[in-house]
Amino acid sequence: MLKVEHIGIAVKSIADANRLYETLLQVAPYKTEAVESEGVLTSFFKVGDTKIELLEATNEQSPIAKFIAKKGEGIHHIAYEVANIEEAMQRLAAEGFELLNTTPKKGADNKLVAFLHPKTTAGVLVEICQEIKKNS
Amino acid sequence: MLKVEHIGIAVKSIADANRLYETLLQVAPYKTEAVESEGVLTSFFKVGDTKIELLEATNEQSPIAKFIAKKGEGIHHIAYEVANIEEAMQRLAAEGFELLNTTPKKGADNKLVAFLHPKTTAGVLVEICQEIKKNS
Repeated sequence: MLKVEHIGIAVKSIADANRLYETLLQVAPYKTEAVESEGVLTSFFKVGDTKIELLEATNEQSPIAKFIAKKGEGIHHIAYEVANIEEAMQRLAAEGFELLNTTPKKGADNKLVAFLHPKTTAGVLVEICQEIKKNS
Repeated sequence: MLKVEHIGIAVKSIADANRLYETLLQVAPYKTEAVESEGVLTSFFKVGDTKIELLEATNEQSPIAKFIAKKGEGIHHIAYEVANIEEAMQRLAAEGFELLNTTPKKGADNKLVAFLHPKTTAGVLVEICQEIKKNS
């Protein structure tokens, strides 16, 4: 893994959480983006070389709505940047990690993403992501 | 906050989790350290400019034992690096965040640390930390 690209945090209200994180981190969010396929509204904060992604559910079927109903607000996932997501997915599957999607999908912030099931990662929802290049 | 210094992950067995994270991250832990005051055994992995800290409880009163009993294995806290921990604690208390310790305490990996109560941070246990300098 190249680095921790971002940490995803499930929140009930992006508006409230944006204010809280602006105060905590002393930086404003650089982007707000809806990801309709996931039923989420996101906002991103830069902190050093990584990012905090806040996630609010936009419908009741959203994974974030289900997460908050079960566990409350809190840390939802850790996303690691990889150079080549297809190669990383093949390697991780061969090592015994269970992938939640079999092909990369479009995520927020111009990324191709895949998720590993927490039951194969000691309870942590792990995302791997690769920046979508302009000419690919 | 200067950067995400590390992400703390509560695990049942450091030995098992070290193997898992070596496979996941493709890097070996650079340090294993006991913090007796917290009742934890820790190991650290470098990933880009941040770290993953695995935490195993060494007794039943450990905050990590209580966390796992309540929530299972998973992400326990996010630690942000600050330049001056006393100033950061004063600022955050004045902003309405509840500090779990009123003076900095010695944490793992040569750090002074303080924690913010999750009820004032949208469900996230936030640590702030400052490297202990050799001549201070």
